[in-house]
Amino acid sequence: MATCEAAVFVGADKPLEVQEFPIPELEPGAVLVKMDMAAVCATDVHNHHDPSWPHPMIFGHENIGTIDRLGKGVHRDVLGCPLKEGDRIIFRATPCGRCFNCSIGENCQVVKNYGFIPADKPPHLRGGFGQYLYLDPSPWLLRIPDPLSNDRALMSVIGNHTVLNGIERIGGISLSDSVVVQGSGPIGMGALTQARVAGANKVIVIGAPPPRLELAKEMGADETIDIGEYREPKQRVAKVRELTDGRGADVVIECSGGTTAFQEGLEMVRVAGKYLVVGQLRDHGPLPITPYLITRKVIRLNGVISSKPHHIIRTVQMMDRVVKYPVEKLITHRFPLNDVNAAFKSHETWEAMVAVILPNA
Amino acid sequence: MATCEAAVFVGADKPLEVQEFPIPELEPGAVLVKMDMAAVCATDVHNHHDPSWPHPMIFGHENIGTIDRLGKGVHRDVLGCPLKEGDRIIFRATPCGRCFNCSIGENCQVVKNYGFIPADKPPHLRGGFGQYLYLDPSPWLLRIPDPLSNDRALMSVIGNHTVLNGIERIGGISLSDSVVVQGSGPIGMGALTQARVAGANKVIVIGAPPPRLELAKEMGADETIDIGEYREPKQRVAKVRELTDGRGADVVIECSGGTTAFQEGLEMVRVAGKYLVVGQLRDHGPLPITPYLITRKVIRLNGVISSKPHHIIRTVQMMDRVVKYPVEKLITHRFPLNDVNAAFKSHETWEAMVAVILPNA
Amino acid sequence: MATCEAAVFVGADKPLEVQEFPIPELEPGAVLVKMDMAAVCATDVHNHHDPSWPHPMIFGHENIGTIDRLGKGVHRDVLGCPLKEGDRIIFRATPCGRCFNCSIGENCQVVKNYGFIPADKPPHLRGGFGQYLYLDPSPWLLRIPDPLSNDRALMSVIGNHTVLNGIERIGGISLSDSVVVQGSGPIGMGALTQARVAGANKVIVIGAPPPRLELAKEMGADETIDIGEYREPKQRVAKVRELTDGRGADVVIECSGGTTAFQEGLEMVRVAGKYLVVGQLRDHGPLPITPYLITRKVIRLNGVISSKPHHIIRTVQMMDRVVKYPVEKLITHRFPLNDVNAAFKSHETWEAMVAVILPNA
Amino acid sequence: MATCEAAVFVGADKPLEVQEFPIPELEPGAVLVKMDMAAVCATDVHNHHDPSWPHPMIFGHENIGTIDRLGKGVHRDVLGCPLKEGDRIIFRATPCGRCFNCSIGENCQVVKNYGFIPADKPPHLRGGFGQYLYLDPSPWLLRIPDPLSNDRALMSVIGNHTVLNGIERIGGISLSDSVVVQGSGPIGMGALTQARVAGANKVIVIGAPPPRLELAKEMGADETIDIGEYREPKQRVAKVRELTDGRGADVVIECSGGTTAFQEGLEMVRVAGKYLVVGQLRDHGPLPITPYLITRKVIRLNGVISSKPHHIIRTVQMMDRVVKYPVEKLITHRFPLNDVNAAFKSHETWEAMVAVILPNA
Repeated sequence: MATCEAAVFVGADKPLEVQEFPIPELEPGAVLVKMDMAAVCATDVHNHHDPSWPHPMIFGHENIGTIDRLGKGVHRDVLGCPLKEGDRIIFRATPCGRCFNCSIGENCQVVKNYGFIPADKPPHLRGGFGQYLYLDPSPWLLRIPDPLSNDRALMSVIGNHTVLNGIERIGGISLSDSVVVQGSGPIGMGALTQARVAGANKVIVIGAPPPRLELAKEMGADETIDIGEYREPKQRVAKVRELTDGRGADVVIECSGGTTAFQEGLEMVRVAGKYLVVGQLRDHGPLPITPYLITRKVIRLNGVISSKPHHIIRTVQMMDRVVKYPVEKLITHRFPLNDVNAAFKSHETWEAMVAVILPNA
Repeated sequence: MATCEAAVFVGADKPLEVQEFPIPELEPGAVLVKMDMAAVCATDVHNHHDPSWPHPMIFGHENIGTIDRLGKGVHRDVLGCPLKEGDRIIFRATPCGRCFNCSIGENCQVVKNYGFIPADKPPHLRGGFGQYLYLDPSPWLLRIPDPLSNDRALMSVIGNHTVLNGIERIGGISLSDSVVVQGSGPIGMGALTQARVAGANKVIVIGAPPPRLELAKEMGADETIDIGEYREPKQRVAKVRELTDGRGADVVIECSGGTTAFQEGLEMVRVAGKYLVVGQLRDHGPLPITPYLITRKVIRLNGVISSKPHHIIRTVQMMDRVVKYPVEKLITHRFPLNDVNAAFKSHETWEAMVAVILPNA
Repeated sequence: MATCEAAVFVGADKPLEVQEFPIPELEPGAVLVKMDMAAVCATDVHNHHDPSWPHPMIFGHENIGTIDRLGKGVHRDVLGCPLKEGDRIIFRATPCGRCFNCSIGENCQVVKNYGFIPADKPPHLRGGFGQYLYLDPSPWLLRIPDPLSNDRALMSVIGNHTVLNGIERIGGISLSDSVVVQGSGPIGMGALTQARVAGANKVIVIGAPPPRLELAKEMGADETIDIGEYREPKQRVAKVRELTDGRGADVVIECSGGTTAFQEGLEMVRVAGKYLVVGQLRDHGPLPITPYLITRKVIRLNGVISSKPHHIIRTVQMMDRVVKYPVEKLITHRFPLNDVNAAFKSHETWEAMVAVILPNA
Repeated sequence: MATCEAAVFVGADKPLEVQEFPIPELEPGAVLVKMDMAAVCATDVHNHHDPSWPHPMIFGHENIGTIDRLGKGVHRDVLGCPLKEGDRIIFRATPCGRCFNCSIGENCQVVKNYGFIPADKPPHLRGGFGQYLYLDPSPWLLRIPDPLSNDRALMSVIGNHTVLNGIERIGGISLSDSVVVQGSGPIGMGALTQARVAGANKVIVIGAPPPRLELAKEMGADETIDIGEYREPKQRVAKVRELTDGRGADVVIECSGGTTAFQEGLEMVRVAGKYLVVGQLRDHGPLPITPYLITRKVIRLNGVISSKPHHIIRTVQMMDRVVKYPVEKLITHRFPLNDVNAAFKSHETWEAMVAVILPNA
């Protein structure tokens, strides 16, 4: 029986182990994907240190793959495009469709996405950090347009899709809005891109270190604020005011996850402005915050995590046809499967902007 | 092997035939429903006359049933409420979750709802006009709250859910809006109810014959306009203007399906008002209409068909706790399964407001 | 020259002084209003203690008055209704129409509303706590419908209009939403009323003391949580969860202004729920808050202060025709002009729910 | 007394007459504008042929001017930017702020904009086709940013502002939407620009003659459909389907005003798509239309005329900083004031895309 390799999480803080697994037979409706590329996400790194996280598990949820085999009855992608072996795809677990969250159009409470499914039972291969990934019957599939590189396709599901979801929730970016992006990591870069394509007038990126801010400029930022230079929150708030005619930004998007960031953002947004909070994904416990600003400035605010299927369709198309910036440059580090632990380290040290595993390289 | 009866559509304009079917065995995840009540809808009557409609088919898509048997693994409804045999439920086919429409949050293109599935293959029992209805594995289920009668529960899926969907699409009814409802059938009555619960100031129902308008008043209409009395569209438009301080209605909801109704509605809505079009479900071919009114009056307009799962959750809860009007009075005619053709006739002659089949009576 | 009296703020913490003023001549376009009723608002009480607040000033911005004299050219109200001397009106300063805020549809930055204008210069009479109030040329006017009592008309501009503005900003209350109202003062009562008219399924009011909660029940609350009984925030959060099937409330409206309220509200709202923050009008400085909840639960959140003209039109019509609850009972204390300081005291001691001055009683 | 010239409408179908007027003295708050540029709009041409249109009147409502003199008390523009003589501005009559439309945030019912005010009374100079234009006290003013040319500034109030208003009303263009623009005149070109800046994937412009379609490509159109080549509506509908993967366009914007255009647009938009109707500004009487499509396809639809002040702020900023396309090329013809009738003719013959008058050239 043919086998393949995958990197397995075997317990908190232990190195991921590359193990061998059988390549499974296909049920009707299932798809076997040969993995091209999977990004190391902050969530993977976080879970890697979490003693309560279930194991064994194959991480990797930002994935690009190629159809190796199509199960019986799988003929087309979500857009009705015919599928065949050798086509590159983006995929998701299909939501259950019958839980409360599915019924209100939010993220399914029942179905886990690939990269978050325990690997103890066959077919085991449920995460991107492996040579193959097995999609359960009736997966959600999107064929990657031929002219679109794997690198650009991957960026559509890093930052961009989540921010797009969030921008919808705050009622959109209006033509000529000034936008502040807090954070210069992959999510911040996605927010920068989204603001640009939505017609922002001025996009200000706050972050560090300087090379990331340089990259931000290359990706379309009009202004950057280096937190190494503007060390105090009040300095950064003052600088934003200065750059927005004293009025504050029309839209602020928090992508940093920093402990002072939320309060800073409240101070940066203008009266009747909007604040999208993507970055506060980890519980830092209670922080000193003045909700008074929300009322006084009549701020519209939304949190967001993840995205809905149509956001992925849209960001993939965007990477193909709308955005001219070299977003593929955000992928700074590439590792073969055997170097998965080095990839994690490059993420943790902030050395990599985006580090990817090439499981079949 | 136990058997049961169901009324089968066997071809256009032929009487529905009550036929015998085996009561099927349950797959894991499936549910066998014993039908309590199924309404005859205008769509059923329309399809009954359509030579291109597939047969055999068991009609009936506005249904209330009781759980006869639960397949393995079915434990809770959409709200997380435990389920057991004997519980009353509202149900739907679960959407596929991977087609384009599912991905954008619209009605699934792939999965047919019960009442629209051919009956030629086992388990056959796929419509409400039968003693039993077989729900495929993983159905969408909502337990009917104990205090809520079958009659009121049924009304939640007649008119109300579709209109609620539509009202969302036009951005809601604002507090104290004046609302015109074109049509005094079941959909119009649902629109009346929805307008009332949304805080309308004045609801004007246009329709006929007089007993239906009387019923509309009992359901909360402030004013009615009898099309038998106000025979010309321009008279009705003038009357609406008179009842809305000369300004026109804030919101118009077309539920009549009449050939002059759309143009009338455009004339009735005020500047910057809203127009929801539920009733134009059949293609009457080109009609004389002046789109100029849409531009000049800056009208917001939306069509709507059917509903999403959360609308059903909400209308069922509404019937249980929010609405005090005796909506159950809209069910004017009740028939045993054997009289299904008489039920259809009572609908076609406008004799019945809502006619229901009681398949196990 | 005819004179009249008004209560004047003459410096922080000093008793308001009833002083005599000339009744002014009317410019073209101006209106002289004989005051019927003006409510003591928390803002008045707050400003009364503020050493930086300008004086002399006649407070009173929640007002009902009668047209004493109409300036040349004033013929109709905002709805086109003819005006004459003796008509009762609600009024506002007309926004400038050319500042940034006016241009984006937010509250005018330039024009001060009546009750907030210094009284040092003629025509002096610019607040509700006086026998007459002088409206500058081209005021915004709404005739009070004849069947509507002064008491009910006044309640339309206490709480209700602001909350209505806020509910619009969070995208509305959906049919059958469960709503938690934090606070049982006048704003909380307005939130309760607004939730009811918008079709809420269950409204839970959190507050104290017990008589206010009794009143809340009379105004339509389904459940109340007494903060004297449920002393700890976590108890109140647990109770809300219990009352909302463990899921949390669909909508939370903060109307209390308490220092723990914002964090509590974040904990009470369900995943993908909405949080409207009306009460955090005063700066308590930094409070311990976990913004993580906003991201994790994908909360939609909005602050709000004051209202726009159309909200007043709508709440006045609502009091006239939509709401059947005895909202006039919220006016618990009535004082002649000379007892204005007693009125303020009744507010500060929480003795009064709403205290009003009857300047011409 | 100093005098100046202006072109005056003196009755339907009569040539506009260049007449002499005194340059008026300034009231406090007023502004005297020296006109730089005023576009001939289809509305001007239409009114020129309208026997019921009041005269004398100085047309010209799409205007760029320079501050000649500032009345007392006029210090800043809408963004708070200081103003001085010699600054270039865009201006509007300030809305009344107290009519019903103002109260609901729609176009003022009371105040006429410059270019639509009879010229029979002093100060006469109320339209753009004159050397000077007198702004009544308290006008709405926006300083044109120094780097922005008059040509580009003018284009911000031709098509773009109205379409931006409309796009807001249909809930925005979503990232990667396919957009069909019906019409290749100035409004259509504005729609094309707006779709591009909002992140459209593919913009298809339908119009004629070929040079306009060439220009559309230069302005960013991906595809054009020549109505001279695709003569039948059904051919154009088929072509749009072909260009949108058989699904129809996500968004259609009607800017042509053609009698078949509305029905064509309904056929071009996809299920659950959006249709913005800008072009149906003239009453062609009843046209053959099938409202059935609106219901069946669950179309969201909105009419729009004109814009709100914030749309102008945004389109001016857009022309300055967001849009890189050479929109100034749309100004194809320039005329001195004395050739105003030739300018009108160049518009009527479709020879000019945009014809402008340079009143002080």
